[in-house]
Amino acid sequence: MTTDFTATRALFDLPEGMIYLDGNSLGPLPRTAAARVGRTVTEEWGKMLITGWNRAGWMDQPARIGDRIARLIGAPAGSVVMGDTLSIKVYQALASALELNPGRRVVLSDIGNFPSDLYIAEGLLRTLGEAYTLRTVAPEDVAAAIDDTVAVLLLTEVDYRTGRRHDMAALTALAHEAGALTVWDLAHSAGAVPLDLVGAGADFAVGCTYKYLNSGPGGPAFIYVSEALADRARPALSGWLGHEAPFAFDPRYRPGRGIERMRVGTPPILQLAALEAALDVWDIADIHDIRAKSIELSEAFIAAVEAACPTLTLASPRDPIQRGSQVSFRHPEGYAIMQALIARGVIGDFRAPDILRFGLTPLYIGLPEVLRAAEILAEIMAGDLWDRPEYKARARVT
Amino acid sequence: MTTDFTATRALFDLPEGMIYLDGNSLGPLPRTAAARVGRTVTEEWGKMLITGWNRAGWMDQPARIGDRIARLIGAPAGSVVMGDTLSIKVYQALASALELNPGRRVVLSDIGNFPSDLYIAEGLLRTLGEAYTLRTVAPEDVAAAIDDTVAVLLLTEVDYRTGRRHDMAALTALAHEAGALTVWDLAHSAGAVPLDLVGAGADFAVGCTYKYLNSGPGGPAFIYVSEALADRARPALSGWLGHEAPFAFDPRYRPGRGIERMRVGTPPILQLAALEAALDVWDIADIHDIRAKSIELSEAFIAAVEAACPTLTLASPRDPIQRGSQVSFRHPEGYAIMQALIARGVIGDFRAPDILRFGLTPLYIGLPEVLRAAEILAEIMAGDLWDRPEYKARARVT
Repeated sequence: MTTDFTATRALFDLPEGMIYLDGNSLGPLPRTAAARVGRTVTEEWGKMLITGWNRAGWMDQPARIGDRIARLIGAPAGSVVMGDTLSIKVYQALASALELNPGRRVVLSDIGNFPSDLYIAEGLLRTLGEAYTLRTVAPEDVAAAIDDTVAVLLLTEVDYRTGRRHDMAALTALAHEAGALTVWDLAHSAGAVPLDLVGAGADFAVGCTYKYLNSGPGGPAFIYVSEALADRARPALSGWLGHEAPFAFDPRYRPGRGIERMRVGTPPILQLAALEAALDVWDIADIHDIRAKSIELSEAFIAAVEAACPTLTLASPRDPIQRGSQVSFRHPEGYAIMQALIARGVIGDFRAPDILRFGLTPLYIGLPEVLRAAEILAEIMAGDLWDRPEYKARARVT
Repeated sequence: MTTDFTATRALFDLPEGMIYLDGNSLGPLPRTAAARVGRTVTEEWGKMLITGWNRAGWMDQPARIGDRIARLIGAPAGSVVMGDTLSIKVYQALASALELNPGRRVVLSDIGNFPSDLYIAEGLLRTLGEAYTLRTVAPEDVAAAIDDTVAVLLLTEVDYRTGRRHDMAALTALAHEAGALTVWDLAHSAGAVPLDLVGAGADFAVGCTYKYLNSGPGGPAFIYVSEALADRARPALSGWLGHEAPFAFDPRYRPGRGIERMRVGTPPILQLAALEAALDVWDIADIHDIRAKSIELSEAFIAAVEAACPTLTLASPRDPIQRGSQVSFRHPEGYAIMQALIARGVIGDFRAPDILRFGLTPLYIGLPEVLRAAEILAEIMAGDLWDRPEYKARARVT
């Protein structure tokens, strides 16, 4: 292992006394992000004003940062661009994929997919017309459901609730054999597990950056299109910055070269500044080391929790190869248990109806904290410390 | 006039020696924005982490700030929500408007509309199918082109090149008489001119915040839906934060109440922090005063330029009531002239093929600067100072 985890941890600012196991939802603040954002605000926006688009390189930021993301997901330079939210990127990718497979009308997904992906598909298919159908099956039935009616296979690689991983290479191969294209959502994968989009033959991929890539609340999403399709994909969200010559102000849309056409509107420069700072950790972190350490942490956490908390049921696959970088347990009182944990400084999150989620993120979390979190959970369970009205009263949770 | 322009100007940080006449493209840095963004980064993201969504109020920010924008555009509280880019908001509004007028297939716009609006319409109509048509006419022919085939009238109120204003109330009334709905793009209107969306009967409106609302590069857009339509509009971009209960993680989409359904994905919290700071100026600025002062500035600028620069042709309407808060001139060497101006510290911008644009923004620009800018322009024109290779060499301009 070449990654020095003490060094990666030193790059993050974590509150004293908190054990943060929610980096799968919102990554913590990288130490350099505040200064980097501050510089963008005062030195770039403040002093360059409009000229910042060229002089500070704002206009190229979505492609430049896209290249840095590409290296983390097994994609070549020039195949990834930043912008918008993940839901918008799902819409873009799915719309383009459907248009590239014009003879078919079925989008296949699974019921464990993140709801927004399914909602977005639903909205797009309604716009496309009655002939289109969204078919969802159980995650384990996806392979068998790929047939020659499927236009696009739309899957999230790592399940947001259970952490179960799909086999991207195998399912993509099955899809291609059946004449379908693939759209992979990497929200819970990018920065968490090694990915090889080119090796897997993925057609489209999308993801967010505020989870394992630590870009901060509302950081921009990314989209990848394979080299084979990048110049053929026709954007449905044909915004001016995806135009071949945005500043020619042509009345007609002509898609830009390759991935550039997946840009839409003005990029969020302050959020991109935070993301840029957050990506620096990957200069000293190797994603394979992160994965190995994440498995070590998750195996230790599962063993400790199962030994001490018999009423919690593992919701994640037992085989670590089948999991992303999170571990989930089920309990009917999961909501109250999570509130009790948070009150003790252990931050995970709850997903309806009964899932306790814990993100295990070696960039800034080590074995002692993971074992301490398991101990605190054990104390809460042993003493029924969750059974208090203030923990049971539901606030809106994220 | 109740607005103290010395006080509003004191709220902005403008570089020494620069005359900034490009606030119609990117507003300058509000003095409190750096601290506000810094606090969001270090105190909210850094210390609250995931709990910031509730504790720092991030989740409600798009609606809370939407209410502040609403006051500036003649819309009631609860009718505006923030998010995404303007192009995405145009797509949302147009898709919903078309679905609300199902018997018709024509979108009517004008050739002066911002190209991205036309591109987005083109992409949406392709997605909807061959039956749909985008019809564009000259701006002055719009009224005559509204007939009973038109489903949606899609217009930008203030032309980005010439500053010409459409009559929102009159055209909306004509559209309604003909059975059409309206989508108004307020990119160059919000914060520049008084608006009365309710009084005009506008159905949908969208806009950006980084121009006259000074939210910084890539600040989020807004969308307005009239009270009559807000609960009937079906989002095409049906993302999870527009769901009735996003954290129920239902597999099926159920649109949220009213304008909330126009939310899509995770809001850009750092950009919203900058916007929030930028909106504080409206606590001491009255939009009617801004308008009156803007007309004073633009009349003075036109008079001074026309007196001294006979080869520059006014591209904006001569009647100030017909203009937004910018003044444009045409010249075949417009690009080089603008570069020469920028080299002298007068920042305007150029729009192909021959437009010199000057934003006149009373929040932070006064008569002395406007007259000084006209003087410098006169010197450049009188001495042909623009006629130098370095000014004629085209870089990418924004």
